[in-house]
Amino acid sequence: MVKDLDKVFKPSSIAMVGASNVPAKWGSFLLINLLAGGFPRDRVYPINPREEFIHGLPAYRSLSDLPVVPDLAVITTPARTVSGILEECARCGIRSVVVISSNFSEVGEEGARLERELVEVARRNDLTVVGPNTMGVVNTRHRLYAVGAPVQLHPGPISFVSQSGNVGANMLGWTMNQGIGFGKFVGSGNEAILQASDYIEYFGQDEETALILAYLEGVDDGRRFMETVRRTSLKKPVIVLKSGRTEEGSRAAMSHTGSLAGSDHIYDAAFRQTGAVRVDSSQEMLDLAKSFERLPLPPGDRLGIITLGGGWGVLATDATAAAGLRLARIDDRVREVCDELLPPFWSHGNPVDLVGNIYMETHLAIMEAMAASPEVDALVVLGTLGTGTIIGLNVLVSQSLVMEMSEDAMKSFFTELKERNLRLLRRAKELMLTYRKPIVFVEMQFIGEENLRDLEAGETVIFTAPEKAAGILAKMLSYRRFLERHGLERSWTVDP
Amino acid sequence: MVKDLDKVFKPSSIAMVGASNVPAKWGSFLLINLLAGGFPRDRVYPINPREEFIHGLPAYRSLSDLPVVPDLAVITTPARTVSGILEECARCGIRSVVVISSNFSEVGEEGARLERELVEVARRNDLTVVGPNTMGVVNTRHRLYAVGAPVQLHPGPISFVSQSGNVGANMLGWTMNQGIGFGKFVGSGNEAILQASDYIEYFGQDEETALILAYLEGVDDGRRFMETVRRTSLKKPVIVLKSGRTEEGSRAAMSHTGSLAGSDHIYDAAFRQTGAVRVDSSQEMLDLAKSFERLPLPPGDRLGIITLGGGWGVLATDATAAAGLRLARIDDRVREVCDELLPPFWSHGNPVDLVGNIYMETHLAIMEAMAASPEVDALVVLGTLGTGTIIGLNVLVSQSLVMEMSEDAMKSFFTELKERNLRLLRRAKELMLTYRKPIVFVEMQFIGEENLRDLEAGETVIFTAPEKAAGILAKMLSYRRFLERHGLERSWTVDP
Repeated sequence: MVKDLDKVFKPSSIAMVGASNVPAKWGSFLLINLLAGGFPRDRVYPINPREEFIHGLPAYRSLSDLPVVPDLAVITTPARTVSGILEECARCGIRSVVVISSNFSEVGEEGARLERELVEVARRNDLTVVGPNTMGVVNTRHRLYAVGAPVQLHPGPISFVSQSGNVGANMLGWTMNQGIGFGKFVGSGNEAILQASDYIEYFGQDEETALILAYLEGVDDGRRFMETVRRTSLKKPVIVLKSGRTEEGSRAAMSHTGSLAGSDHIYDAAFRQTGAVRVDSSQEMLDLAKSFERLPLPPGDRLGIITLGGGWGVLATDATAAAGLRLARIDDRVREVCDELLPPFWSHGNPVDLVGNIYMETHLAIMEAMAASPEVDALVVLGTLGTGTIIGLNVLVSQSLVMEMSEDAMKSFFTELKERNLRLLRRAKELMLTYRKPIVFVEMQFIGEENLRDLEAGETVIFTAPEKAAGILAKMLSYRRFLERHGLERSWTVDP
Repeated sequence: MVKDLDKVFKPSSIAMVGASNVPAKWGSFLLINLLAGGFPRDRVYPINPREEFIHGLPAYRSLSDLPVVPDLAVITTPARTVSGILEECARCGIRSVVVISSNFSEVGEEGARLERELVEVARRNDLTVVGPNTMGVVNTRHRLYAVGAPVQLHPGPISFVSQSGNVGANMLGWTMNQGIGFGKFVGSGNEAILQASDYIEYFGQDEETALILAYLEGVDDGRRFMETVRRTSLKKPVIVLKSGRTEEGSRAAMSHTGSLAGSDHIYDAAFRQTGAVRVDSSQEMLDLAKSFERLPLPPGDRLGIITLGGGWGVLATDATAAAGLRLARIDDRVREVCDELLPPFWSHGNPVDLVGNIYMETHLAIMEAMAASPEVDALVVLGTLGTGTIIGLNVLVSQSLVMEMSEDAMKSFFTELKERNLRLLRRAKELMLTYRKPIVFVEMQFIGEENLRDLEAGETVIFTAPEKAAGILAKMLSYRRFLERHGLERSWTVDP
């Protein structure tokens, strides 16, 4: 089963059954997204008995008319036609199928009957079937976008299985804005044949995947699922967003996918044992994925905090305790460095309050001392990134009040500002490599989403609010502890 | 005291004591921000004995040399000089002073001595003193930006007192990006004379303020503070972000401002009695402020959810229960409308799952029916806003694959898309006015921060993740219930 998924995620050719020229039809969406994503046009075969060309490609009347046996069939035709098409797939030698079509078990008795029929045909012919009622599949490295959402993702080592098509599609969209790289995606749909466990197992064995995300509403094969997650977690992190946390949510999940959502407490306990890292929201899932990808795991629970001003330090301290982490002790070396660089009334404790000191050399020296300290397992740096912005803006405004500022001067100012920020980030990256502990930045100078992604460059993690960092680090620590309990260690970054 | 704050927030002229031409000095920042903010140049008097002109304005040797008595003095000179300057203020007839200068009680014994001296001089001369060690003050309607952060805010009815200058300044910055209007801001600094209670009382009486935000680390005058908040909450919402939630955070707060943070449980209970609405993070504070400003208070706890797809509906249901709200019952009228417009297998319950139906008329009709239902106290609409984006992008991509798309056609497509979204938002606004219940949107098509603010137009609330909405509505409800306990009702929107 898992081996057959290679043809789903890495097909060399694809038949699009139900391809259409009519805008807003799934048969149109899917083909457009596939072509726009860069899949080779000459290996895409639209099947539609009533058209000669579809979106510029020659159309075929049926699968049997194709000049080759494609690796994968993607079906968007009405539910009642699907079983017949599966039979035809089997006759033609097509073994892997993505059934986008909906109106199966999710819509009542007649749909459920059609789905039972689909399962029977698929089993009898030993077909690998994704769906039905799925948003589709993506594999960025393979330029495969057989998916209903018009997304073009940054390639990366994160793979994602979602039991909801719209949750999946929207989250993929967010990764584009947030500069997060993605590898494979699958909407598991009604899971008539393949279930979430199968995809997790596949991603677990997939060398291109270093990190697995799963959005779940419920699983039917509880024991197998948990065993799969446990085995997979020993190799790579599995981040789970499980809805139905509350009784109400659980009922809503049941009406959505018909799956038995089960008691949340049971899931929670089970997840803990399996090493899965559970998150509470879609955004936390992406923040954590990014952090797992870019940061080493914290070796312990002692958090160091550097802050440009006291207030955010207090809020970060709250967040630290709330996340179950401890404030690191300030050791003699850090104390010496701070004594030398900060005014005598510096906080003399953690958080280290820079009391507004804006000198880059100070920021670097204190960050280095904290990173090197054996008392510190992870470091959160608040407000030093982007300090140039405030100072710089003032200088700019000042100069424009008293003289004309040349365009060149302006440009060189912003270049310098960016260099300043990059210097801090590059040094942090070096320190992470040296000391194998995470350093996370919080930028609070409103330099804008796009500039932030530019600075992160897919290599560091910058949050925009200080409250998030501690919670993310605590979840990374929980995964490290799971590995340790099994005598394992994760190398510093994913290395796809 | 409170009356004298008028001269702090609405001075007709200002002396800037310690104004400077040296970039990166507070005396330079402050003046630059003040002038850049649009305060009349001819009513600003830089005081500096060593310069003739400062940032283009004639400088004066001392306050006594001024041709007029300014309403307000803003001081940025070293701590040891401040008491002397306060004496001079008093001699010249200046009654209101903002002391930006730091190095007072926050830095140890010598600073504490200087602060006691400052207090003595201020009390003896009956001066109104903000600070010392404050980030400054802002009043957007008065074009007053006597503040250390280079912010230019959207005017609005929200006022904010912050016990941390950097928390305050950063949050002001965020409001710019998030399209949130602001009225007055004050960093309360060391609170040597004026305390958070004074500002809250002033904002409470201020007709231009409809909503008060407070970032607090601790208060010394607990009883008076709580009494002020209670009295003020009867008139307008007071949203409080109180740090030191945890023991560790509380200790950090003490070392930051020296204030006694007190037990968090005591605060929590006290806040509940006073009607203050407590939030857990800086971003939640801004989300809630925006919602209070733009939405009517929900009359009860029954939440209606409309969702384009099942998955987000499940997550929103979880969030509803977690926030202590209930799912509204679907009444016969809503059922009829859905039966007519949706396929027979529609969810027949709340959340109403549009199962991917993208027709604007369907969205409008179901939103109208839900808003009109006496079973529904508040409405969350997930994913309908921006649906044009996905469809539209597909059409665009499709057309560019098969033909050249003219620039005009492109432009008219995006205009139409925006019109479509605006139609939904305008109808929601009308429905809110008619039925006096909040309607909140969640946009998940990644149309980008800037486009979102453009659509909100300062009038509606659009979240970008579905998990937030329920929590915000629950906090609004808690405030309504506080008002009801006192036999009061809040009119639908703030009307500044």
